[in-house]
Amino acid sequence: MSVLPKSVERVITEISKIPGVGPKSATRMAYHFLRSNKHDGLKLSDALKEMDEKVKTCIKCFNLAEEDTCEICTSVMRENDKLCVVEEPLDVIAFEKSGIYRGKYFVLGGVISPADGIGVDEIRIKELKQRVNELITESESIELIIATNPSLEGEATAQYISDMLNGVENVKITRLAMGLPTGADLEFADQLTLKRAFEGRNSI
Amino acid sequence: MSVLPKSVERVITEISKIPGVGPKSATRMAYHFLRSNKHDGLKLSDALKEMDEKVKTCIKCFNLAEEDTCEICTSVMRENDKLCVVEEPLDVIAFEKSGIYRGKYFVLGGVISPADGIGVDEIRIKELKQRVNELITESESIELIIATNPSLEGEATAQYISDMLNGVENVKITRLAMGLPTGADLEFADQLTLKRAFEGRNSI
Repeated sequence: MSVLPKSVERVITEISKIPGVGPKSATRMAYHFLRSNKHDGLKLSDALKEMDEKVKTCIKCFNLAEEDTCEICTSVMRENDKLCVVEEPLDVIAFEKSGIYRGKYFVLGGVISPADGIGVDEIRIKELKQRVNELITESESIELIIATNPSLEGEATAQYISDMLNGVENVKITRLAMGLPTGADLEFADQLTLKRAFEGRNSI
Repeated sequence: MSVLPKSVERVITEISKIPGVGPKSATRMAYHFLRSNKHDGLKLSDALKEMDEKVKTCIKCFNLAEEDTCEICTSVMRENDKLCVVEEPLDVIAFEKSGIYRGKYFVLGGVISPADGIGVDEIRIKELKQRVNELITESESIELIIATNPSLEGEATAQYISDMLNGVENVKITRLAMGLPTGADLEFADQLTLKRAFEGRNSI
């Protein structure tokens, strides 16, 4: 005899599939929906269904979109000669929140990671090359800002892209600066961060 | 211009309503559903809808049920002369997992907490009295095990129930033992726990 009604068990099973959510948290979340007298569960149910139906990836940058092309790629307000290459759609949000960048994006959909069986064909390298060619035709010369994460895989992917486009004319390739993050404590900085902050030191 | 498609924003808003889930975790969860190629979001959507439609509270013990009466109240295998009073349905699961208890339950739906505006009428005190009377008629004498949490409010609620049933014949009222939890370190035990463990000491 199961203690929980089957429909509750099912919700817990589905919530537990979310990475980082264990069975205990999943149970608590399911109980929140049961306790809610505002039908929060039903509202989330509707929202998830709508998202599943509407969201696709932009055919140009592969960011999330509800149309064929996303709002950033469609916008005439964005600089067409800058392309920022990121791993995931979440990275686009981080840039957009900072408000420092007014160019276009390209979402790779991951990084090259042989250990995880992710090779060049598993992420959008081919599509990136094609998009770079498109942009060169449109705007003479472009800057390609590689903003993959400063992890081993992110670095290797940045290097791969840089090598691939080496020799392509009218493309300037840049990479985000490495160094100490704001508010960091030198004492606790890891060796690689400190090394890069030292190597990249600027005159003041 | 919003960076995220509206349907994604909506999912994040709904997930953020879950206590303990901040906007960052909500965004990560929404992205999990977007990334999943097994339609995990749609599966959770269906499960939540089904739960909203099917789950009600048992008319006898107020635990979760898909029928009018829950499986525990219906079962002829459970002792009918023991009633364990708990705060929430989650507490029933804890007891059932331990396998130590074969009686019936009663879910109060909270504890008396004047600071939060929760008085005697906001939880199921009236219904508990009625259920106790029902059980006495059915089985001569009963044991009422008060298993509210060992918090200030839980203690006060236990005391209130105990006072309320004081004088009612054929009801033996008990409370879960207080003391050191398994694996505890005396050095780090709080004063109240230590006091209660000392007061409740047993001969060996």
